[in-house]
Amino acid sequence: MRGFGLTSDGSVGWVEHPRPTCGPLDAIIRPTHLSPCTSDVRVAHGWVDSRTDLVLGHEAVGVVDEVGALVASFQPGDLVAVPCVTPDWLAPGVQHRRRTGHDTGEQASYKFASAKDGVMAQFFHVNMADANLAHIPDGVDPEAALMSADMMPTGLRAVEVAEVGFGETVAVIGIGPVGLMAVAGAVLRGAGRVIAVGTRPSASEVAMRYGASEVISYRDGRLSDKLRTLADGTGPDKVIIAGGDAETLAEAVRAVRAGGIVANVNFMHSTDTLNLPLSDWGLGMADVDIRGAFCPGGGQVTAAMLKLIEYERIDPTLLITHRLQGWDALPEAFQLMAAKPPNLIKPIVILN
Amino acid sequence: MRGFGLTSDGSVGWVEHPRPTCGPLDAIIRPTHLSPCTSDVRVAHGWVDSRTDLVLGHEAVGVVDEVGALVASFQPGDLVAVPCVTPDWLAPGVQHRRRTGHDTGEQASYKFASAKDGVMAQFFHVNMADANLAHIPDGVDPEAALMSADMMPTGLRAVEVAEVGFGETVAVIGIGPVGLMAVAGAVLRGAGRVIAVGTRPSASEVAMRYGASEVISYRDGRLSDKLRTLADGTGPDKVIIAGGDAETLAEAVRAVRAGGIVANVNFMHSTDTLNLPLSDWGLGMADVDIRGAFCPGGGQVTAAMLKLIEYERIDPTLLITHRLQGWDALPEAFQLMAAKPPNLIKPIVILN
Amino acid sequence: MRGFGLTSDGSVGWVEHPRPTCGPLDAIIRPTHLSPCTSDVRVAHGWVDSRTDLVLGHEAVGVVDEVGALVASFQPGDLVAVPCVTPDWLAPGVQHRRRTGHDTGEQASYKFASAKDGVMAQFFHVNMADANLAHIPDGVDPEAALMSADMMPTGLRAVEVAEVGFGETVAVIGIGPVGLMAVAGAVLRGAGRVIAVGTRPSASEVAMRYGASEVISYRDGRLSDKLRTLADGTGPDKVIIAGGDAETLAEAVRAVRAGGIVANVNFMHSTDTLNLPLSDWGLGMADVDIRGAFCPGGGQVTAAMLKLIEYERIDPTLLITHRLQGWDALPEAFQLMAAKPPNLIKPIVILN
Amino acid sequence: MRGFGLTSDGSVGWVEHPRPTCGPLDAIIRPTHLSPCTSDVRVAHGWVDSRTDLVLGHEAVGVVDEVGALVASFQPGDLVAVPCVTPDWLAPGVQHRRRTGHDTGEQASYKFASAKDGVMAQFFHVNMADANLAHIPDGVDPEAALMSADMMPTGLRAVEVAEVGFGETVAVIGIGPVGLMAVAGAVLRGAGRVIAVGTRPSASEVAMRYGASEVISYRDGRLSDKLRTLADGTGPDKVIIAGGDAETLAEAVRAVRAGGIVANVNFMHSTDTLNLPLSDWGLGMADVDIRGAFCPGGGQVTAAMLKLIEYERIDPTLLITHRLQGWDALPEAFQLMAAKPPNLIKPIVILN
Repeated sequence: MRGFGLTSDGSVGWVEHPRPTCGPLDAIIRPTHLSPCTSDVRVAHGWVDSRTDLVLGHEAVGVVDEVGALVASFQPGDLVAVPCVTPDWLAPGVQHRRRTGHDTGEQASYKFASAKDGVMAQFFHVNMADANLAHIPDGVDPEAALMSADMMPTGLRAVEVAEVGFGETVAVIGIGPVGLMAVAGAVLRGAGRVIAVGTRPSASEVAMRYGASEVISYRDGRLSDKLRTLADGTGPDKVIIAGGDAETLAEAVRAVRAGGIVANVNFMHSTDTLNLPLSDWGLGMADVDIRGAFCPGGGQVTAAMLKLIEYERIDPTLLITHRLQGWDALPEAFQLMAAKPPNLIKPIVILN
Repeated sequence: MRGFGLTSDGSVGWVEHPRPTCGPLDAIIRPTHLSPCTSDVRVAHGWVDSRTDLVLGHEAVGVVDEVGALVASFQPGDLVAVPCVTPDWLAPGVQHRRRTGHDTGEQASYKFASAKDGVMAQFFHVNMADANLAHIPDGVDPEAALMSADMMPTGLRAVEVAEVGFGETVAVIGIGPVGLMAVAGAVLRGAGRVIAVGTRPSASEVAMRYGASEVISYRDGRLSDKLRTLADGTGPDKVIIAGGDAETLAEAVRAVRAGGIVANVNFMHSTDTLNLPLSDWGLGMADVDIRGAFCPGGGQVTAAMLKLIEYERIDPTLLITHRLQGWDALPEAFQLMAAKPPNLIKPIVILN
Repeated sequence: MRGFGLTSDGSVGWVEHPRPTCGPLDAIIRPTHLSPCTSDVRVAHGWVDSRTDLVLGHEAVGVVDEVGALVASFQPGDLVAVPCVTPDWLAPGVQHRRRTGHDTGEQASYKFASAKDGVMAQFFHVNMADANLAHIPDGVDPEAALMSADMMPTGLRAVEVAEVGFGETVAVIGIGPVGLMAVAGAVLRGAGRVIAVGTRPSASEVAMRYGASEVISYRDGRLSDKLRTLADGTGPDKVIIAGGDAETLAEAVRAVRAGGIVANVNFMHSTDTLNLPLSDWGLGMADVDIRGAFCPGGGQVTAAMLKLIEYERIDPTLLITHRLQGWDALPEAFQLMAAKPPNLIKPIVILN
Repeated sequence: MRGFGLTSDGSVGWVEHPRPTCGPLDAIIRPTHLSPCTSDVRVAHGWVDSRTDLVLGHEAVGVVDEVGALVASFQPGDLVAVPCVTPDWLAPGVQHRRRTGHDTGEQASYKFASAKDGVMAQFFHVNMADANLAHIPDGVDPEAALMSADMMPTGLRAVEVAEVGFGETVAVIGIGPVGLMAVAGAVLRGAGRVIAVGTRPSASEVAMRYGASEVISYRDGRLSDKLRTLADGTGPDKVIIAGGDAETLAEAVRAVRAGGIVANVNFMHSTDTLNLPLSDWGLGMADVDIRGAFCPGGGQVTAAMLKLIEYERIDPTLLITHRLQGWDALPEAFQLMAAKPPNLIKPIVILN
C-alpha cells in the first residue's frame, strides 16, 4: 500500500509498505481525513532521531477496515476518531495514578511514526482498538473530530495540568494550533483574563475568537515584565507554554505569581539545557510548580473531546486554514506545515 | 436608621435600629443595590429558628461609609461587592484545608441576618473588611456585581465540588437562580451535555441561554430513569442539587453513574431524615460521593466572580427579572421572592 | 478439578469443575495459600443473589501454571499475588479518572466468585494477567502477600478516600480485618489520634498494635456523642466505616466535623434504605462528604502493597489468627469465617 | 531587653532593643526554648541581603507574656508553640487556594528576623496571635514542640507537595534536620522504600531510625544513576530536595521516574541559574513536576504537628544533638549551627 513519510534514504516522500497486520486486539483503519503536525516535520528533520522508511502522521479520522478476533466495541465500517496516543493498556504504567493513559517510559505510548508506521497511509494499525478508538457521534463533523486526535486533548491537557480555576488570569505562550486550543480550553475552564502571546495575525484573530482577552507579541519588550504588568502586577495565576524558544521557560517562571503553575506542553528541542532563574523561582520556595505534560492517551479522552464538539462547547474547525483534497495532496499539506506561511494554522487532507 | 426584616413581634416589616458600630478591623457599608434571597424568606418563616428584631438580607453592593483604624485596603467612598459569607479570618477553621473560607462550625461564617443584622438597612456592618470585601472594577455593572454575593459563588462552588471535567455530562436539579448559575458554571467549566431539571418557562429559557443542552421536567416520569436514559444509559457523571424536595437526594444517587459525584448546595429543610437508597448507592461500594457544600467565604472569591463578569465569561444579569427602585420598594421585592410568580427569577432593588 | 463453593443445590461444599481455559491474555494459577472472606459467606448465604455451582474465594497467592500466548511479564512457575479485583483493562471504565482500576458498572471488575469461579480450586483463571498479577518479591512472606489481595488494599483505600492528613483525628468503625487495615493505614498515612470502634478483645489488641490510640465499644452510650467528645468536641476529621449496621452511616455523619469526610468500605446489606439525618449533615451545607469506596483493581495496587510489606511498613500477618493446612481444611476455614469465634480475625489455608 | 543577632555594624552578637509593642491582635512571647537554624546563619552571612541591628531566630517555644485587646484564645501564662511562618490573615494571599498560609508575595509571611526582629530575645512579637500560635498539649515535651516551628512542618510539607503515596519509592536528598523530617514524613505518609542521600554518620543513623531503607552518599558515583538503579531501574516515584548544591535539581530531574515529582524545600542560593537538563526532563513532556515549596504558615499546622508528637507518630527530639542551658549559651549554639561539627544535627538552648 502507499504511504507518505520517510523513504529509505531518509528524504520525505512516498513509500510502499505492506498493509499492516491486525493482531487479535487490534484494528486496521482506512483514513478519510488526515492532518500533518509540526511533530511530523520534526521527525522528518531528524530532530528526535534519524529515521528512514517510516510512514509519518498521527492525526487521523477514518473507517474501520478490519478488527481482531478479541475486539468487541468496533466493527468494519465504523467511523472512528483515533487518539495520537494509544497506550498498551496491559502495561504497568497505565495504572500509574498521575499519568493519564501512558504506559511505560516517557512517550512510549506515542506509537505512530515512532515505534511503528504512522497514519498517512492507505491503512494504518491501532493497538488495543477497544481502548484506543472512539466512535464519532452522528452530527459531529469529521473535520472537527480530526482535531480530537492531538490538538484538542493536548491544549486542554495543558489547562488541566495548570489547574485553571474560575476567574484566574492565564497566559498562553504560543498560538499555534495547540496554543489556540489552550486558549479555548482556559476560557472553557472558567478563566477570567486570558492573555495569548504570539505574532501571527491569522492566529491572533482566532485566539480572540476563542475568547482571549488580548494577544501580545514577544517583540514588545520583555515578555515577563509585560505579563506581570498586565496581571495586576503580581503575574498571571497560570502560564501555559505551547511554543517559544530556549528562554521561554525562564520567562514563564519570571512571570507567574507566587503559588502559580507553569504548565508546558511544548516539544522543547532548541537547547540541551534550560535555564531556571533561581531568584525568579523564589529561591525554590515560592510554591511555584513547573510541570511538563503530554497529550493523554486512550479512546475515552477522545470521546470527551467529541462530546465537547457535539454539544458545541468548542469549535476546533477554526484551526483549519487549509483544506486539500485527495492522496496526492499530502506532500503539499506536509510542505505547508514545514513552511508555515503566515496564514496557516492547520492544514488537513480530505481523502474521500 | 431604617432596616427591613423581622420586627419585635416576628412579622416582616420595617425596623429602626441604631447604625452599627465599626470595630477596628471592620467597615460600615451603605448599600446601593440589594437583592432578597430565598434564604431571607426562610428566616422570615422561622424555618431555621424563630427570630425577632433582625434586619434581613445578605446580598448587597454598596459604598464604604466608614472603616476601622486597622483597615488598609478600603476607604470611605469605595464601591464594593460584599460576599454573603464573611469569615472570622483569625478563627482556626479558616485554616482547614477542605473548607473554603469558613471559620468555626457549620455555617458560622454566614453572619448576615443570622449572628447579626443583615444588609437590608441604611448601613450594615462587615467584619474584617480587608479580607471580606472586594473592589468593583471599572466597567463592571453593579447589578451584575450584586449577583457575586451569593448566586454566582454558590452555583459555581457546586460545580467545583462536583469536580466537573471536560466533556462530562452534568445534571443540575433545580433552576432557581443558584441552579442557573450552576448550569452556567458547568458550561464554563467544560462540561459536554448539561441537563437542567425544572419546570418554570422563564427559568428554562435562561437555562438554555446559559448553555443547557435541554431542560427536562420533574413531572415527566421518574427523574432518575430519565437522567440515566439521557446520559448514555449509565447516568450523568455528576449531579448537582440546587433545588427539589425530600426525595431529590435519593433520585440523584439513583441517577449518577458509578464513580460519579452528587453535589448539593440546596438548603434542605423539608424533612428531618433523607433516604439514601442502598442498592442504588452501589451498596456503599460504587465510588459514588455525596457531597454537601456551601457558598465559600471571603473577598477573594468575590473578586474571582467579578473577574468572570469583567472578562464577559458569564452574564449574571440574565437572572434579574425584576428591578425595583428605592427603599420603599423593599417590601415588594421581598414579597416577590416569597410569592415566586412564574416569571420571577431574581428581583433586585436599586437604591440610588 | 476440585473446588470449594456452592454445589448445584446451592449448599456449601465441594464441586467438581473442569480446569479453566486460558485465553491469550490470561493466566491459570495454582493456589498455594487461600483465605476465605466475609464476602464468601455472604455469597453462600445468598445475600447478594442466589447462586449455585460456583467456586468461592477471591483471596489467593499461587504459582502460575499456564499463560496465554500474549502474556509478556509472567511465566509458569512464577509465584504471584492476585488482586481480588481484576479489571478488563480494555473496557472504557478503566480510563475513568475517579475510579482506580474498575471497568464497567459498579463492581463489575470484581469477577471471582461472581462473574466466574473463584480461587478456591486446584486451578483458577486470571483475566489479563500482565495487568492483574504481581510478582512476590524475594523475602516477602506469602502469608503476608495473601493479605494484599483484599484486606490491605481495601483498608488502605478507605484511608485514601478519606484523604487522611498529617495529625488528623480519624475514627475507624469496625475492627474486622479490613477495619484493622484501615487503622494501620491511617497511622501509616500520618494521622494523629486514631480511634477504633469495636468490641472483640483479640481484634482490639491488634488494633492497638497497629497504632490505634484507643478502642471504644459500640455499647458504651451513643457512638457519635462519644466520638465527638473524644475528638475535641468538634468530631473526628475523618470517619471510616468498615463495619456496623443500618445506623452506622447516620452515626458517622453525626460524629464527623464540619468539613470532614465519611468514607465507607463496608459491604452494606442490612437494610434497603439508609437514614441520613439532615440536621446532623448540616442541612446539606457543611462541606461534609459521604463517600462509598471499593477495593481498587489491578496488579500495580497489589505491587504497592507488597512494597509496604517488603519495606516493613506494615505487617498484615497480625490479622492471621488461624492457619490451617491442606485442601481438606478449606471447609473448616470457611466455617470459621461464617461462625466468627471471638478469637478469629482471619483464617488462612496453606496448601503446600 | 537583650537580644541576639546582628549588631549595628552587621556582626553577630548581643543587641539591646526595646521590648516589642503589642498591637490589638498580637501577643508578646517570652521564649523558654530556642533553636538556631541554618537560615539564621544565612541571614548573618548576608546571603539574602545585608542587615544590621536585627534579632535573629525563628524557632521558639515560650510563654505568653501579653496579648492584645482583641485576642480571644490565648492569655498570659499560656505555654505556646510558635510557627516560623506567621501570615497576615487579612491579606488576600491567605485566601489563595494553592498556598497554605501565606499572605502576599513569595516569603512575606515569613516575618521573624526578616520584616521584624526574630525570636532570640527576652521577648518577641507574634502578629495575629489567635491564628498564629498553638497551645502545647499536656504531656508534650517542649523540646519536641520546638521542632514544630520549622523542621517538622517544612519536612512534612515536602512530603505533601511530593504527593507521596502508599508503597512508593521516595528519595530524600540531604539529611540535615529538614531532610530527616522529610524521611520520617515519607515513612509516616506510607512510602515503601525510602532512600536518604547524605554523608554525615550521625545524621545517617537518625535517618535509619526514622525508617530510611538505606542511606547513600553523594560521593559514590553519579547520584541520579544510583537512584535509578536502586529504584527498579525506572527511578524513584518522588524525589525530595532538602539539601545539595547547584547541580542537585538537575540530578533529581534525571533520577525521577516519568510521571514523578521533584519537590524542593531547600533554600537554594549557591547559584543564580539552575540548569534543567531538557532530555532528562523528557523534553518537557514526561509528566514530571518540579515543585518549589515552603514551610506552611499558621497555628493550625503547628497544632497538627503537636498532634503527631502527642500521639507518638514521630519523635522529633532525635534531631536534637546539643542541649545548651541559659541565655549566655546562645552565641555558642549559633556558632555550632554555623560550624556544623560532624555530630551536630540541631542544637537547642533551654532558657529556664
